[in-house]
Amino acid sequence: MSTDKQIFARRESEARSYCRSFDTVFTKAVGSEMTAEDGTTYIDFLAGCSSLNYGHNDPDMKAALMDHVSADGIAHGLDMFTAEKAAWLEAYEDIILRPRGMDDYKIMMTGPTGTNAVEAAMKLARKITGRRNIVSFTNAFHGMTMGALSLTGNAGKRNGAGCGSLCGVTHMPYDGAFGDGVDTLKQVEMMLDNSSSGIDAPAAFIFEPIQGEGGLNAASKEWMEGVARLAKKHGAMLIVDDIQSGCGRSGTYFAFEGMDVEPDMITQAKSLSGFGLPFACLLVKKEHDIWKPAEHNGTFRGNTHAFVTGRVTLEKFWKTDEFQSKVQEKAVMLTTGLQAVADVVPGAKLKGRGMMQGVDVGSGDVAEAICAKCFEKGLIIETSGADDEVVKVLVALTVSPENLRKGLDILLEAAREVTENNKIAAE
Amino acid sequence: MSTDKQIFARRESEARSYCRSFDTVFTKAVGSEMTAEDGTTYIDFLAGCSSLNYGHNDPDMKAALMDHVSADGIAHGLDMFTAEKAAWLEAYEDIILRPRGMDDYKIMMTGPTGTNAVEAAMKLARKITGRRNIVSFTNAFHGMTMGALSLTGNAGKRNGAGCGSLCGVTHMPYDGAFGDGVDTLKQVEMMLDNSSSGIDAPAAFIFEPIQGEGGLNAASKEWMEGVARLAKKHGAMLIVDDIQSGCGRSGTYFAFEGMDVEPDMITQAKSLSGFGLPFACLLVKKEHDIWKPAEHNGTFRGNTHAFVTGRVTLEKFWKTDEFQSKVQEKAVMLTTGLQAVADVVPGAKLKGRGMMQGVDVGSGDVAEAICAKCFEKGLIIETSGADDEVVKVLVALTVSPENLRKGLDILLEAAREVTENNKIAAE
Amino acid sequence: MSTDKQIFARRESEARSYCRSFDTVFTKAVGSEMTAEDGTTYIDFLAGCSSLNYGHNDPDMKAALMDHVSADGIAHGLDMFTAEKAAWLEAYEDIILRPRGMDDYKIMMTGPTGTNAVEAAMKLARKITGRRNIVSFTNAFHGMTMGALSLTGNAGKRNGAGCGSLCGVTHMPYDGAFGDGVDTLKQVEMMLDNSSSGIDAPAAFIFEPIQGEGGLNAASKEWMEGVARLAKKHGAMLIVDDIQSGCGRSGTYFAFEGMDVEPDMITQAKSLSGFGLPFACLLVKKEHDIWKPAEHNGTFRGNTHAFVTGRVTLEKFWKTDEFQSKVQEKAVMLTTGLQAVADVVPGAKLKGRGMMQGVDVGSGDVAEAICAKCFEKGLIIETSGADDEVVKVLVALTVSPENLRKGLDILLEAAREVTENNKIAAE
Amino acid sequence: MSTDKQIFARRESEARSYCRSFDTVFTKAVGSEMTAEDGTTYIDFLAGCSSLNYGHNDPDMKAALMDHVSADGIAHGLDMFTAEKAAWLEAYEDIILRPRGMDDYKIMMTGPTGTNAVEAAMKLARKITGRRNIVSFTNAFHGMTMGALSLTGNAGKRNGAGCGSLCGVTHMPYDGAFGDGVDTLKQVEMMLDNSSSGIDAPAAFIFEPIQGEGGLNAASKEWMEGVARLAKKHGAMLIVDDIQSGCGRSGTYFAFEGMDVEPDMITQAKSLSGFGLPFACLLVKKEHDIWKPAEHNGTFRGNTHAFVTGRVTLEKFWKTDEFQSKVQEKAVMLTTGLQAVADVVPGAKLKGRGMMQGVDVGSGDVAEAICAKCFEKGLIIETSGADDEVVKVLVALTVSPENLRKGLDILLEAAREVTENNKIAAE
Repeated sequence: MSTDKQIFARRESEARSYCRSFDTVFTKAVGSEMTAEDGTTYIDFLAGCSSLNYGHNDPDMKAALMDHVSADGIAHGLDMFTAEKAAWLEAYEDIILRPRGMDDYKIMMTGPTGTNAVEAAMKLARKITGRRNIVSFTNAFHGMTMGALSLTGNAGKRNGAGCGSLCGVTHMPYDGAFGDGVDTLKQVEMMLDNSSSGIDAPAAFIFEPIQGEGGLNAASKEWMEGVARLAKKHGAMLIVDDIQSGCGRSGTYFAFEGMDVEPDMITQAKSLSGFGLPFACLLVKKEHDIWKPAEHNGTFRGNTHAFVTGRVTLEKFWKTDEFQSKVQEKAVMLTTGLQAVADVVPGAKLKGRGMMQGVDVGSGDVAEAICAKCFEKGLIIETSGADDEVVKVLVALTVSPENLRKGLDILLEAAREVTENNKIAAE
Repeated sequence: MSTDKQIFARRESEARSYCRSFDTVFTKAVGSEMTAEDGTTYIDFLAGCSSLNYGHNDPDMKAALMDHVSADGIAHGLDMFTAEKAAWLEAYEDIILRPRGMDDYKIMMTGPTGTNAVEAAMKLARKITGRRNIVSFTNAFHGMTMGALSLTGNAGKRNGAGCGSLCGVTHMPYDGAFGDGVDTLKQVEMMLDNSSSGIDAPAAFIFEPIQGEGGLNAASKEWMEGVARLAKKHGAMLIVDDIQSGCGRSGTYFAFEGMDVEPDMITQAKSLSGFGLPFACLLVKKEHDIWKPAEHNGTFRGNTHAFVTGRVTLEKFWKTDEFQSKVQEKAVMLTTGLQAVADVVPGAKLKGRGMMQGVDVGSGDVAEAICAKCFEKGLIIETSGADDEVVKVLVALTVSPENLRKGLDILLEAAREVTENNKIAAE
Repeated sequence: MSTDKQIFARRESEARSYCRSFDTVFTKAVGSEMTAEDGTTYIDFLAGCSSLNYGHNDPDMKAALMDHVSADGIAHGLDMFTAEKAAWLEAYEDIILRPRGMDDYKIMMTGPTGTNAVEAAMKLARKITGRRNIVSFTNAFHGMTMGALSLTGNAGKRNGAGCGSLCGVTHMPYDGAFGDGVDTLKQVEMMLDNSSSGIDAPAAFIFEPIQGEGGLNAASKEWMEGVARLAKKHGAMLIVDDIQSGCGRSGTYFAFEGMDVEPDMITQAKSLSGFGLPFACLLVKKEHDIWKPAEHNGTFRGNTHAFVTGRVTLEKFWKTDEFQSKVQEKAVMLTTGLQAVADVVPGAKLKGRGMMQGVDVGSGDVAEAICAKCFEKGLIIETSGADDEVVKVLVALTVSPENLRKGLDILLEAAREVTENNKIAAE
Repeated sequence: MSTDKQIFARRESEARSYCRSFDTVFTKAVGSEMTAEDGTTYIDFLAGCSSLNYGHNDPDMKAALMDHVSADGIAHGLDMFTAEKAAWLEAYEDIILRPRGMDDYKIMMTGPTGTNAVEAAMKLARKITGRRNIVSFTNAFHGMTMGALSLTGNAGKRNGAGCGSLCGVTHMPYDGAFGDGVDTLKQVEMMLDNSSSGIDAPAAFIFEPIQGEGGLNAASKEWMEGVARLAKKHGAMLIVDDIQSGCGRSGTYFAFEGMDVEPDMITQAKSLSGFGLPFACLLVKKEHDIWKPAEHNGTFRGNTHAFVTGRVTLEKFWKTDEFQSKVQEKAVMLTTGLQAVADVVPGAKLKGRGMMQGVDVGSGDVAEAICAKCFEKGLIIETSGADDEVVKVLVALTVSPENLRKGLDILLEAAREVTENNKIAAE
């Protein structure tokens, strides 16, 4: 069978995006490999933008899902009680919450997309505090619905709202936003402590521990702890958006583990189902769970298929430290590989941490050229950052060392060729 | 296996809702029947709030999904090209768009929840027109994220936003909102035509052809055509929210078929996948598809599993008129059955149309008592309306005549008993 | 001396307006007559848009002001205690408040313009209730600063804010807005009583008893009492904007006298100083006076010169009923005179009440032609209404019967000539 | 005559403020002296918060006003042409605009309060640019109506709006806001240059050259020029709010003279009339004067009495450099005198520049104690700053050297006594 790609141009909205970079029709995917209709196999360094931390079609999740479907298990049950939800909740409690001393969190099933979890957090923070203002940070990305978009930094994304009102948010500099010497936390603190700064008392602070879309900016432990302290001082909710950085991406399950940061709310989505199925939730401290029944609801909240595969992720990868240790080892390999890339591109520098790293190559044009060259060579990889200037690796945490190495080799080669071409063009 | 329901109270947010009405743990579902852990089987008159128009676990969708998963088909591909997306788009074009003279629509894959499609429509309308104001209607329900919520009428839902800004929307009376004698359309028109009314020039009008959450209010053909005319006159986009009333629920695929209404945008979700999987999209006239790439995106947009099952719905149910005819026949049965219910409840009256009908029993207490009684007798059914005063039937369109009758019998019996009890209590 | 009018075009902003209709340079004014540099004397039927209810340069106010200035009385004292403020407050208490059973009002000196008083009322209502939404009415005019403008109906005025946010207001139909048969109050009530209408619980209702800029629409006693009742029912403040209709313009000091309407706040400005000097205040029920010191302030609040002349207005005109009786007699003359005008213009009808009446001549073009013709004949008169379709009389309440008659005669003649010309043009 | 002060408590709103500090009834004022009913004369170091830069009851203005009133000159003429307006415009053009190379400004008569001019500027900037966001600065004070208040930093003032929407403004650090070492301009620039900062493209930047209410913070030449450059770079209007710092207060007529700053708009009020009469205007570059007639209007715009006295200020004080030179000499005296004060208060430091200087005494309690002590000794003086920690001198520019010295002596003595008392209390 050969797909006529005309159908996409003819029928799909101009809003479509990734298909523009990867102009082939995919039909199959296993682990860190995707196969196109024409038989070509690609190494996947994008992993559904961190939605496939455990790779494509993990055999255990696949088996569990097939069993569930074949037994006429519930596919859609609104938020009624199901055995699958109970099993997921119990696994999450046993494997994630209790071992991390997080027994006082409750789980809100929001609509199954990250933006929905963010909107729920915003609404709840405003409801709890009776305040409107939420402090967000430069280069933040929290989603595309009106509330989440008001938190988002990117002008292009914000423009999508036309003249709609993206208000009630104060945008502040993220860690490192003003360069190496400048302590942005202190500046945020001074603005908030000055009763004449014009910044209204905040309902919440929200940040990503590692900014994905914003260019793989990783906040320091000190900065995150400082924001946590500030939130407490000002009576504001601390919301950690761990949608892209969570589920092991940072090297630990949550990206703020090992820090003196106790969020009032945590948003999760992306790899929560493990299988790429839509699923999102909001963790919220019990004392703040003041929702009335159905006060925030959604038809697809608590996707049952996702409970099935999500439970497998917990039991298979997070019961012991083994998986986490291996991930951290791969992160070291990744750093080494990316350093080699940075070394060939003039002025380039590493970004991010854990399995959420990349190379800032200085300009969007260069980054895009490198990614395009990679795709020609069989590697799926994308850019991020305010100007798309970062080549970003979001490979599955389960990637084999061989594929990781192979991908990094392609990336290095592509970077070399693009740099070489640019030199020639400049002469 | 017996599930300990404590886990839900201990871990799930207070926002949970349906599980409060149906206090049992479900494990299996086929067609219009759901089975609980204890072996009890219930007739399902709720159908995932219209997300399961084709019933639970339709055998053909199930087979297609199992085939896809077992072959390591793509589960999550962002918005890359996949064979499954192409196949769905082609089916949609052939079976839905072209036969209805709707060849000039493009399809935007939004995040896979209805609210996401609504937010995309709002943003696009504002972007196109350079205006902010959107006209929405009393008792409207369009979703829970900040943009969609600003369109929503229900005060309880709106309160969930705390003091967040739900602005940029003018709320106007829906058809019939001021009682039988009053032409609300004329009043909307007078407000909009008066340049000193304080109503800003609208970016869009948005309405549900049949209001689901708002109490099964069905707008008349004349009213919908009038709103369409008004939108054109004022240079505003016409957005039809067909999320709950679409996919055959009204008796035709779209709820505005056969009317002189040509929406600029149409939101779809709920039964779009047919299997209860998260899936939403926005139909938009080609001339209005001015999105830049990725200007509105979302990790889970274009759920591949949903493409697989969604294509089956189109090919199985919509290639000919047969299914539609049967649905219309069942709608007649439904009307008859509900009239019998209305006859036993003093002051009750029928609401809605097609397979989206119910009985306004005058008060939320009565409606809830009837639904509770139904559940005791093996029927899953819910209320809707500003005060939950409507007993609402959203049974699968594929329900067997036997189950439809059985369900209606239970409902009638429950209505009788509750009415009888209330009479006794009143004496 | 002859003024070179070039200076105005060269230096004054395009926002200037009245000077465009009355293209001559004025130098002197007494009572209801204004004299231009070239010696022409005009009868003034505009009276500073109701800011000169007692005519120009009333001899007693003039004497009091001259005495004050010559004695080096305070011209500007911020809101410090002055003998003049005390004297005005005492007169206002004795002559206005106590005889009308309004002893429980306090007086807030706002910045000396009407819009400032309106903004203070909006802020206070929101502060008291903790709610944001304020219900305003079609054709309302409350001022040009951002808060007051959000209440204002006129699209042209609203456009002046560019894409600034005029939010937090619900615009509802004023009495008669939907024509004679339609009870707009009932519709407002239905929208507010429906908890799913999308109308947030109101902080306040604000209305003008007679709409000046909006076209001399006079609300009925029943309608105003109904709004008052609605406000109470919904826990909202009732704000009566009596800026243009107050200080005797309606026939009584306040335009709501003799009605079962007890406003929580009343805005005053325009003729408050009596001499045309800037002065505004907000009357507020004692129980609602929860301002902190300086929470709303303003450099020019409590204009001392205005206290001096304002006190004269109270003592000279309002100590007994005599003035009020005469005003009401003149209002009858005015009605008679305007009926004659209406009789010569096809389709014309009377608008307003008291000394705030006019003729709706059906179109802005006709109204403007009539006013222009009047000016040629020595009468200053202006239009109002959404489309400037109303020829509006706001003559001083102190106008002599001769001047009133003379002015009305000119108006009648102008109306006749314009009608005649239009007939000829149409043939 | 002795005024019963009960009337103020009984009738005037709790919003009243200055009268709380200066608890006596004033009856007369000349130059820099105010006399109370009991015969006590006070030196006035407040000067109507900079509204009386030329002192109370200047004899020439007084004479001109008396002549005008006695001749039945126009007191209120809306915005019709008057000889007085022409004369003022011509004087302003000849004496202020042309000698300063500012021939391309037009003058918009707004409502006669500063906040009205600010609102007009905000609206016009948004209208011109089609953008909403306005950049304002920490400790800014621009007025109390909703638009101006959204620009204002002070939390107490902002709280007066209840839950009203103060949106569409980005608050940034003013020069020096983060302490001596920190270049706030650079940080503002980095936030604006980062397309992912979340700061929407600005319609305008607005700042006070010297912040009056905010604590006498004087921006440096470099900072102001930097903001001007930034505004140009980002296509935004530059609005200089010279309401408190203008009319000579800074040592030159405008506070930005001698700098490479060419504002698109300049707000003026306070001392514009010279006599303390309400008067405000907006200077706007001709190219930006895109108002439609009456698009922003106001009953009291263009106060005729203020034209009369305002013309005297121009002709008497600004025709030559003499007055300006004397003001600058007095500013040196003021600095010397305040340094002496600062020397006796531990940790105190000078603030401001020109005739707009003060002493930051470290706490609001100390500052208020000093001011209270001053009043006992016959000096009217007030505090400013986020925490009222600055003792602020706004004496008339025309103050005699004797009165200036006398006032400074009282201030020094008061500061000494308060410091002494605090030392004793601390022991």
